[in-house]
Amino acid sequence: MSGETANGQTYDFRHAPDRRGTASVKWDVGEGELPMWIADMDFATAPEIVEAMRRKLDLGAFGYEEPRDDYRQAVADWYATQHDARPQTDWMVFATGVVPAISSIVRRIGHVGDNVVVEAPVYNIFYNSIENNGRHALSSDLKRDGDSYNIDFDDLEAKLSNPLTTLMILCNPHNPIGKVWTRNELEHTARLCLKHHVILLSDEIHGDLVLSGPDYTPAFSLKAPLNRQIISLVSPSKTFNLAALHAATAIVPDPDLRAQVARGLNTDEVAEPNLLALDGTIAAYNEGRGWRKALIAQLRSNRENARDFIDRNIEGLSIVGGQATYLMWIDVSALTDDADAFTDEIRRRTGLVLSSGSVYRGDGNRFIRLNFACPPNMLADGLHRLGTGTKAYRSTHIKQSDRSPYKPRRF
Amino acid sequence: MSGETANGQTYDFRHAPDRRGTASVKWDVGEGELPMWIADMDFATAPEIVEAMRRKLDLGAFGYEEPRDDYRQAVADWYATQHDARPQTDWMVFATGVVPAISSIVRRIGHVGDNVVVEAPVYNIFYNSIENNGRHALSSDLKRDGDSYNIDFDDLEAKLSNPLTTLMILCNPHNPIGKVWTRNELEHTARLCLKHHVILLSDEIHGDLVLSGPDYTPAFSLKAPLNRQIISLVSPSKTFNLAALHAATAIVPDPDLRAQVARGLNTDEVAEPNLLALDGTIAAYNEGRGWRKALIAQLRSNRENARDFIDRNIEGLSIVGGQATYLMWIDVSALTDDADAFTDEIRRRTGLVLSSGSVYRGDGNRFIRLNFACPPNMLADGLHRLGTGTKAYRSTHIKQSDRSPYKPRRF
Ligand SMILES: Cc1ncc(COP(=O)(O)O)c(C=O)c1O
Ligand SMILES: Cc1ncc(COP(=O)(O)O)c(C=O)c1O
Repeated sequence: MSGETANGQTYDFRHAPDRRGTASVKWDVGEGELPMWIADMDFATAPEIVEAMRRKLDLGAFGYEEPRDDYRQAVADWYATQHDARPQTDWMVFATGVVPAISSIVRRIGHVGDNVVVEAPVYNIFYNSIENNGRHALSSDLKRDGDSYNIDFDDLEAKLSNPLTTLMILCNPHNPIGKVWTRNELEHTARLCLKHHVILLSDEIHGDLVLSGPDYTPAFSLKAPLNRQIISLVSPSKTFNLAALHAATAIVPDPDLRAQVARGLNTDEVAEPNLLALDGTIAAYNEGRGWRKALIAQLRSNRENARDFIDRNIEGLSIVGGQATYLMWIDVSALTDDADAFTDEIRRRTGLVLSSGSVYRGDGNRFIRLNFACPPNMLADGLHRLGTGTKAYRSTHIKQSDRSPYKPRRF
Repeated sequence: MSGETANGQTYDFRHAPDRRGTASVKWDVGEGELPMWIADMDFATAPEIVEAMRRKLDLGAFGYEEPRDDYRQAVADWYATQHDARPQTDWMVFATGVVPAISSIVRRIGHVGDNVVVEAPVYNIFYNSIENNGRHALSSDLKRDGDSYNIDFDDLEAKLSNPLTTLMILCNPHNPIGKVWTRNELEHTARLCLKHHVILLSDEIHGDLVLSGPDYTPAFSLKAPLNRQIISLVSPSKTFNLAALHAATAIVPDPDLRAQVARGLNTDEVAEPNLLALDGTIAAYNEGRGWRKALIAQLRSNRENARDFIDRNIEGLSIVGGQATYLMWIDVSALTDDADAFTDEIRRRTGLVLSSGSVYRGDGNRFIRLNFACPPNMLADGLHRLGTGTKAYRSTHIKQSDRSPYKPRRF
């Protein structure tokens, strides 16, 4: 499938740029191995963006830069046209990435020894940002309910009301379970944070990647007074496969909180754009609409193919969630509660590199995460390996009596 | 003058890329104004580097990256061939810039409330990194001696031996005075640091820009045990006009200290390269030798022209130092000891934007700093404005009786 857009432009999602032997973290794998773990895509980014980056190189001189209004306007227009929520341009602060911003905000808000509330299983780097900076991660674990998860608001309130809790990091939409939080759920969360004097940091890097389910609601779009303690972090980096662009935006409606965030980013020296960051961001947001549309179509198709293949052919795996992101959260509890050992064995047997769910904590040790953002033939290869590897794993590890008839374990 | 190199390649130093109306910090000035302040150059960088960056864009997919041996090898070869000192590749840690690294190292070494020794007048951002992170800047002021400055080693030792002192930041070569520290001076400094348990952080971003005087000695090249507590920070960014490349290298011979530095850079999220950082750095170091040679010739010529013009035509200004960097340190004490007011007035009268020396502390309030890295005709324009502005300043502010015969004030 090549995505065809309204304006007739077609994009190539059939060929993966060859990143073997480059500085790519994802492709630093053995010969014959196939990486489907770290969250970048095996698609070339939008040609409109590469073109804009080329034009920037034509300038030739690459001294110090600062964000200007054309950048802020591009961010605002994107959220207005794509998500029906226009942030004010003066709410925005540039940062060199979502994770650098999270890490800086953790340092700036609250103090060493404080609690930061998260909802496990969740993006593992949240734990690094929290714990590397001397805070404690306090999880209000999401509650598994059939093939989805929900927030346990009573438990969440208990944890937010803990006097040591000063910050909550929300993942909206939620990696790794791929859930899109509704406006209601966001408002409920924000109201509890407001009541208990907790700053709400909403990581919205996957906001453009909703494949089904409710629309993504940017947290900055909640109405006053709910937006008073909210920081949204957005970036074109996931959407357009630009992780190494090092560009993100903190959107902070409240001026006092914004001043704090800006001060932290500056002190930590993660507030200045590199030579492509502004031009790349502006091009993504101003010229990337068609490409995103085509990408979403491709990701939907990949997701359905993967779901079909796994449901039909791989006994012992069952897919959970998956409204958003290009990451599939797969329950392996019918086979093991040691996802590390499982992914290690799959890699050893088939060369397929997956993320073990254990790094996301919560119930993650009974899950694996598969990145399906790649050309269909690569995905087919990966699914085939997963099938072969799982079958071999079953025949080695599962007693015959447990195996048939197949019934996934619930908990 | 176009630099002509050994291999016959010529480079264009006659035309400045037009950065007006871009995100450039330097060129965010009023119509008709001429910026000669912030330290980036009005030359296009080496075409070899731009070519390598273009090739990187051809790849199309820009996911997460990590430094590899080709990058470390390029750094090592550069220092071996250009400065006769080969660092081991395992001494190197990538950082997103010299200032982000300084700021991270200040946080990692020592504690809130500690002293960090500097030698004023010195690069102003050192003070930000120190004070923003709750440390105190303790200056062992350089001693003015005619048209140069020297380290007062007795005073330096007194300050290093202060029990609150845990870190010293050296500028090698020294911005803004343009002095190249000799191997002897470096060894003396390192010996005192070792004796008093102080980590020595040597900012060597101007190391490739020695125009005359002794060769630059990388601090990492000092012999054991003197190198035990040394961190050198290097980058191609000043040399090749790539400030927004966001690429630097910490070179730390001691493995324990290196582990600390690496941990700090990682926690602060300034350890990952953006999509051009590695390719740009490798191209600069592997293919930039000819361009650097041509640049140095152009900078020498510019420096001589500026020196001649100022000595002959501008009464009241006298140049100090200037062995290295493209920054000229100009004594205005015959006219004022309020360099802020002086530079403001020059800007208002002529549109020329200079750095006031006051930000560098020490005796800086009696100095201005002029950036002469620009095409000759732009430099001539700047010098003309400086002459006109200074003349007007003199006739407004200096009493006739003080004016003639001209005698610069010494202190
Ligand atoms: C929830 C979430 N936040 C942040 C990131 C990374 O952000 P950045 O690359 O801008 O630091 C990821 C990458 O997987 C992610 O899933
Ligand atoms: C001594 C010194 N260190 C560091 C820098 C800036 O380093 P970077 O742009 O890599 O953060 C400058 C720029 O003027 C400088 O003069």
